[in-house]
Amino acid sequence: MRIALLGGTGDIGEGLAVRWGRDTDHELLVGSRDPEKARAAAESYVAAVADAGGDATVKGFDNAMAADRADVVVLAVPPYHVADTVEAVESTLDADDVVVTPAAGMKREDDGFHYHPPSAGSVTALVRDAVPDEVPVVGAFHNLAAGRLADLSQELGIDTLVVADDDDAAATVSRLAEEIEGLRALSAGGLSNAAEVESLTPLLINVATNNDDLHDLGVRFD
Amino acid sequence: MRIALLGGTGDIGEGLAVRWGRDTDHELLVGSRDPEKARAAAESYVAAVADAGGDATVKGFDNAMAADRADVVVLAVPPYHVADTVEAVESTLDADDVVVTPAAGMKREDDGFHYHPPSAGSVTALVRDAVPDEVPVVGAFHNLAAGRLADLSQELGIDTLVVADDDDAAATVSRLAEEIEGLRALSAGGLSNAAEVESLTPLLINVATNNDDLHDLGVRFD
Repeated sequence: MRIALLGGTGDIGEGLAVRWGRDTDHELLVGSRDPEKARAAAESYVAAVADAGGDATVKGFDNAMAADRADVVVLAVPPYHVADTVEAVESTLDADDVVVTPAAGMKREDDGFHYHPPSAGSVTALVRDAVPDEVPVVGAFHNLAAGRLADLSQELGIDTLVVADDDDAAATVSRLAEEIEGLRALSAGGLSNAAEVESLTPLLINVATNNDDLHDLGVRFD
Repeated sequence: MRIALLGGTGDIGEGLAVRWGRDTDHELLVGSRDPEKARAAAESYVAAVADAGGDATVKGFDNAMAADRADVVVLAVPPYHVADTVEAVESTLDADDVVVTPAAGMKREDDGFHYHPPSAGSVTALVRDAVPDEVPVVGAFHNLAAGRLADLSQELGIDTLVVADDDDAAATVSRLAEEIEGLRALSAGGLSNAAEVESLTPLLINVATNNDDLHDLGVRFD
């Protein structure tokens, strides 16, 4: 399978790229507004996977070209770049693609991080509104600490929550998630349940901030 | 220590009563609007703990009398009864007491449970507004499945999140939480971080609903 990581030079893109690079045979397409940066990142991910004894196929492109070549398109961009990133790649998407959104809207305030969704109700809902109707959208990978994901020496043993209205798309993304060693995918229902999933991201940061010896936290449902 | 469980005839009250009853020597005061119901519940909790080989001290009172006798007052009532419960016991509270709120505002909709806080921003904030200023308020025990808590044959191995602006009160409640076998207390910061903690409650229900073999879910931060 071909997976595009748009904004894949960022930290969550890096984490997913090196995990899938090490643990699967999927072809990974790092997208960026600057294809030079994407190619440099792709090279560094291949090197990181090689250091961990793996052999990854990772290439760099501009976002639209990455999306065009991919079966699954991950919007690994900050919430405020979701809309323009979708706009840049929209014409390359069709009903056979799956768009995945891992971003959570939040705001850093003096007392902690707070959930701060866009007016659509969640970043996932914003993506659903922005992507052409026939293209399935899946929310996933919100609650993974990017630094831990990117550090292949760290074990995961955590869960990721998947929200989707399209069962096939949800199954595809859950399978991709579970191909990452130590990651379990759990459904949290339809896209309308995304806000509660995204709210977990600021909570994880608040918990990490307020407890010694806890950082790069993930969550396990049990 | 004396712990009042206001609305303690309900399921979260039952769960906390039997766990503390089995695992600690604290005196537990079940409160209800109807003291008869409170006494009946107290008897059944003593019996449940005895069945598990323990010896609990649990007594039933009306809410105000339970609160008056207690050092720690847990508002184990549904969100829409928080305000009138506080009003009923307010005159019994002073700066040496700690009020604990485990309720989360949520709404069941066709597609799942959604976080639905009161206009104060969270149930915790509503409690803070309702309780006299000098009485410390702590949010805790939001994310415990009541059925699992009440079933002493089930192991926990989960976390509870604590929010508070008063460090001593937070420490008291965290200690009480960790006296329950298999429960770890983690700080999520100040009271203003309560909404993200409360949001986890509908999320847990959505995850339990959408995955086979997962029910009465708790969460572990790792």
